[in-house]
Amino acid sequence: MTTATEVKTELTATTGGVRTALAGVSGYAGGELARLLLKHPRLQETRPIFIGREATTLSELQPHLYAIDEQELPVVPYPTWSELKAAGVEIIFLATPHEQSREWVPQILNAGLRVVDLSGAWRLKSASNRAVYKLHDADAELAAKLDAEAVFGCPELHHDAIRNARLVANPGCYATSIILALRPLVAAGLVDIEHGIVCDAKSGVSGAGKAPTAKTHFMHAADNLSAYAVFGHRHTGEVLEQVGLPAEALQFTPHLLPIPRGILSTIYLRLKSRMDKAAVEQVFREFYAGHPLVRIFKAGSLPQIQYIVRTNYCDLGFELAADGRRMVLVSCLDNLLKGAAGQAVENMNVMCGWKEEEGLL
Amino acid sequence: MTTATEVKTELTATTGGVRTALAGVSGYAGGELARLLLKHPRLQETRPIFIGREATTLSELQPHLYAIDEQELPVVPYPTWSELKAAGVEIIFLATPHEQSREWVPQILNAGLRVVDLSGAWRLKSASNRAVYKLHDADAELAAKLDAEAVFGCPELHHDAIRNARLVANPGCYATSIILALRPLVAAGLVDIEHGIVCDAKSGVSGAGKAPTAKTHFMHAADNLSAYAVFGHRHTGEVLEQVGLPAEALQFTPHLLPIPRGILSTIYLRLKSRMDKAAVEQVFREFYAGHPLVRIFKAGSLPQIQYIVRTNYCDLGFELAADGRRMVLVSCLDNLLKGAAGQAVENMNVMCGWKEEEGLL
Amino acid sequence: MTTATEVKTELTATTGGVRTALAGVSGYAGGELARLLLKHPRLQETRPIFIGREATTLSELQPHLYAIDEQELPVVPYPTWSELKAAGVEIIFLATPHEQSREWVPQILNAGLRVVDLSGAWRLKSASNRAVYKLHDADAELAAKLDAEAVFGCPELHHDAIRNARLVANPGCYATSIILALRPLVAAGLVDIEHGIVCDAKSGVSGAGKAPTAKTHFMHAADNLSAYAVFGHRHTGEVLEQVGLPAEALQFTPHLLPIPRGILSTIYLRLKSRMDKAAVEQVFREFYAGHPLVRIFKAGSLPQIQYIVRTNYCDLGFELAADGRRMVLVSCLDNLLKGAAGQAVENMNVMCGWKEEEGLL
Amino acid sequence: MTTATEVKTELTATTGGVRTALAGVSGYAGGELARLLLKHPRLQETRPIFIGREATTLSELQPHLYAIDEQELPVVPYPTWSELKAAGVEIIFLATPHEQSREWVPQILNAGLRVVDLSGAWRLKSASNRAVYKLHDADAELAAKLDAEAVFGCPELHHDAIRNARLVANPGCYATSIILALRPLVAAGLVDIEHGIVCDAKSGVSGAGKAPTAKTHFMHAADNLSAYAVFGHRHTGEVLEQVGLPAEALQFTPHLLPIPRGILSTIYLRLKSRMDKAAVEQVFREFYAGHPLVRIFKAGSLPQIQYIVRTNYCDLGFELAADGRRMVLVSCLDNLLKGAAGQAVENMNVMCGWKEEEGLL
Repeated sequence: MTTATEVKTELTATTGGVRTALAGVSGYAGGELARLLLKHPRLQETRPIFIGREATTLSELQPHLYAIDEQELPVVPYPTWSELKAAGVEIIFLATPHEQSREWVPQILNAGLRVVDLSGAWRLKSASNRAVYKLHDADAELAAKLDAEAVFGCPELHHDAIRNARLVANPGCYATSIILALRPLVAAGLVDIEHGIVCDAKSGVSGAGKAPTAKTHFMHAADNLSAYAVFGHRHTGEVLEQVGLPAEALQFTPHLLPIPRGILSTIYLRLKSRMDKAAVEQVFREFYAGHPLVRIFKAGSLPQIQYIVRTNYCDLGFELAADGRRMVLVSCLDNLLKGAAGQAVENMNVMCGWKEEEGLL
Repeated sequence: MTTATEVKTELTATTGGVRTALAGVSGYAGGELARLLLKHPRLQETRPIFIGREATTLSELQPHLYAIDEQELPVVPYPTWSELKAAGVEIIFLATPHEQSREWVPQILNAGLRVVDLSGAWRLKSASNRAVYKLHDADAELAAKLDAEAVFGCPELHHDAIRNARLVANPGCYATSIILALRPLVAAGLVDIEHGIVCDAKSGVSGAGKAPTAKTHFMHAADNLSAYAVFGHRHTGEVLEQVGLPAEALQFTPHLLPIPRGILSTIYLRLKSRMDKAAVEQVFREFYAGHPLVRIFKAGSLPQIQYIVRTNYCDLGFELAADGRRMVLVSCLDNLLKGAAGQAVENMNVMCGWKEEEGLL
Repeated sequence: MTTATEVKTELTATTGGVRTALAGVSGYAGGELARLLLKHPRLQETRPIFIGREATTLSELQPHLYAIDEQELPVVPYPTWSELKAAGVEIIFLATPHEQSREWVPQILNAGLRVVDLSGAWRLKSASNRAVYKLHDADAELAAKLDAEAVFGCPELHHDAIRNARLVANPGCYATSIILALRPLVAAGLVDIEHGIVCDAKSGVSGAGKAPTAKTHFMHAADNLSAYAVFGHRHTGEVLEQVGLPAEALQFTPHLLPIPRGILSTIYLRLKSRMDKAAVEQVFREFYAGHPLVRIFKAGSLPQIQYIVRTNYCDLGFELAADGRRMVLVSCLDNLLKGAAGQAVENMNVMCGWKEEEGLL
Repeated sequence: MTTATEVKTELTATTGGVRTALAGVSGYAGGELARLLLKHPRLQETRPIFIGREATTLSELQPHLYAIDEQELPVVPYPTWSELKAAGVEIIFLATPHEQSREWVPQILNAGLRVVDLSGAWRLKSASNRAVYKLHDADAELAAKLDAEAVFGCPELHHDAIRNARLVANPGCYATSIILALRPLVAAGLVDIEHGIVCDAKSGVSGAGKAPTAKTHFMHAADNLSAYAVFGHRHTGEVLEQVGLPAEALQFTPHLLPIPRGILSTIYLRLKSRMDKAAVEQVFREFYAGHPLVRIFKAGSLPQIQYIVRTNYCDLGFELAADGRRMVLVSCLDNLLKGAAGQAVENMNVMCGWKEEEGLL
């Protein structure tokens, strides 16, 4: 439990450095984000403010953070956004359900705070893609403006827009793994879009959330593999918009892996014309020059989930058929880090003018 | 869904062989029991009747039984016990919560059926041991009589009583693994009881039941190990009563293993006087002669969970210290088979005068 | 150890029923095959003869078979094929490396035995596809004749040829899962072959064999996923030949799953023209009518590895995009059973005129 | 590959801060140690020198360290100890087999370097306990002197001796978990030693080493649990010596858990006289005051492996029976960190006068 005095102390304005707040600290992504923020070198002067429905402590919600949280860090029951602003908060992270984020963001921006939203509420530019989230807006006109204003928080693609953004929509985990793999080739006009692209993606169970369900029961997930949401996963829209693809060009099938965390996407495409491996590798290396959190594997070796679990890297590798056109791309990342909390910190870094990788290596 | 016609068909009396019914087919033990009954060589003429709260089908509740259940086997909404009797049912299996079993058993016996109850409701002879289940009896006097009458369904210990029993209380999973390991040595008066016995037991997640909870979430159970119910697990009373031990002689600590099924109990005791390995092995071999579902390992090799998963065996092995007195016993079984559904079938076999292992190898 | 007397006893001719022999009982597929043969209802009169490099016992090589092997079943050091024939053996199973099978099969056939070979030695009709195995034949002419004579042991495709075959080449595990999924649609001329087919397949670790390697080390396989043999897996040729596809039409990528057993193949294709789900389902149902070991899922529900592990089923399901042309097929089987040992028994059943599923449900 | 120029560069003396070297970087503990040293805040000026049998690179031996190792850190073929000394190395870590460590340590000390040895070569004070390692010394007299001089590298027990030690013997993983749990109670004279203590310990597969063996094969370790080395594990001597127990007082049984890393030890003992929980907790808190890497759980909650995996903590918790005497202690740590590489860094920290936890939180 957090006492009234502790709440007051938390909400007292501080002078040093950038201050952050985090709503939604009880889930997996929120827990990882709390951990990253607490040890971030730029945030040592002013601890993040954790806010939640009820007064509690961080280690109550995330027992494995007991390590960091020796002082029983308070979780403050929802203050007003103005109180957070008055306490010196500049950036607030929302690791909340998309309905909640959709409702809160206009208020938060109005209070003068910047937001990194980890939900799907503000990621999509096209209304038809957004339909999958069944969003209800109190002020539809304002929401439409914010939809247009929101920056898709993929720092490797939108660094400069993120630098000045008020509202950053942190990408989905599957979407990040696929967008980072496809964007360099598609942007260079190398891919036979008409032929279509197959994305066969596999994710660990943390991607299914913390709520205990029949699907997340150990007896269902362990020693198993299953495909789901075939032709209908919510992250499809993000990939289409960010890579620049027509809907019929992408076939995306997610699978539930019997492991705690990690995503591996196997992507099948055809190049418009014959290329050799070195040239393809070069396209990737140039695209991600200056972005150390995307690692390009040498042609002939492929990423594996083990290499990226508990890191903030996205690893990319590929194989090319003898015809120099059929290509298999493999993209790996940790769904809770580069696919969620780590990318959120990366966005904060960019928003503050720090290096993308600060606090993430 | 099961139709009224199907229900009527199910409840029509048949002429061939022994007929059984099963309540509680939705859980893990119930599912295994359904599977075993459906392929039991003695039950091929008259299929078991599955009963449940709502009309449904077996494969709806247990998708992996779709194999056996090509005809969409009906689950019949609770009939009366007399209807079951009239349909020719002789033995009913209850894989239901203990409160339910406690309420139903007097009615079922009254209707002239025999029962194998898989819950903890009727296992304990001592009222103080029973207290842990917080049982409420409509007719306390009758319940006390039935407590006295109930036979603890461990065929290796109580074969003859089970043969004629109306009410068989199928043992707990941990209890089975510990009782089968300890009983031969204690019964022979070889164990230094006063010194005390330590049972460090480890079970797969299916032992925690099918309900999705924080504890059974893949993210909690996987890559983890935890002790629980230290000094307070419900199965303790069964061990004390069946092995014949005073309460202070037994320290039993269960642990949750990151595997679907299987129990391994490591048991530490002292012999009253020095013995050699061959003599100890002989005690076990003689005790279990004629009981092929308990396998004795040669001194120097130990059981492992892998050897017994998906079998109805209980494997026993041991090591003896150089002093010839300190002993480590290792006992392994599949908690859903020898620790639950398989042992229930074994009890049915004995009740019907068949071989213990029939349909179980 | 197996004594000379035991060897002699094993090789004594018996009178009852069909007799079998098995070479290569030490591996995973060989162990499963031993288990299936020992409990096969048609083989109860005359136990299979297990042969190997050295005299030993079955439970020495396969400790988990200790259950079945109470009598310490002997493994006989390689007898001559004539000795096996004289002992009444009709069918010999080879669960040996492909070089070994390639060398032995001509000798075995010459001795008048029939063979089910579980290796890749005799599966491929096209010499160029066969090149991947780097086979060396003592008598190239004879080998070519046998290549032509060998029947690809997929009972659902080649029942009648298997019935009379001397040499049955048991299919690869991945190949079985893909062939059974694709053959009905391709045979009916429904698939847009020119567009190409993507097979993204995932297999448990038992598929990588029993030899301890860096790849099969628990620390590498657990909590991981990796793609391998991209554009170059040996099973590709089987799929091309049996489904009837040109090489460039198939992109097959296998992955190593962190589970002991089970294969799930996710297959992406386009139909030549628009179809509805019911029509597609009907194609599958008709193709596999009378073949109970292939189960067709209702449109809208998909197979999972959990449903088929430790069974001999191949489960098939699919989803169709709104355009009625883009299709995702999911095919699941246990790589050691329907993908190896179980299918070998199925072949024996057909060779002997028994039902495909005998001893396999 | 590492070139001659790179080797020369590595072995050039530097001026800034403490310099370290590490032999044995190919194994699991060595890999973790490399990772920890590379990111240690006190070692940023002068990178550790990695030495090995052959010239290679760190990421060749430890692909998951590719992240840190962008510059392809060289592994230098064994230089002489004097060359290391001349290059400014003060402390050398040996993550080598115990025979190797036994041979090298006298030479290394002679060259004026300090050593942290992760093997079992120098941990034991009693020659009879040491016998289990079958050590052969070129100079037995010198070896005996060094056996006496070596400091058991448990900073929570021997901080001051480690501060000035030339030779620190880094404790075994199981031993660390048991010693830290037992020492406070035994040192305070609270434990009924004569009654005996049972340590039932369970470890992840990384404890079995990187060599692929039948035991470490995924198919053996996964979904399994097995006891091993009953009455004969090598770490027993460390526990006896460091806790201060006669041999017959300790029964220690290790088990192989189906998880990559983590140890949980369940320890059963009797107190000499009745105590309450608060008093027991106080004993632990006082003993470990000022040692933040040992965390004491509040009475009533117990450590789990999940809380300590990939941390350098040892978590301790306990339950007390109603009699106030029978106690169950639970101790958890990561066998590669607090049980090996992390504790080695902790020892370096103490040797250099830094805080125990520096670079480890």
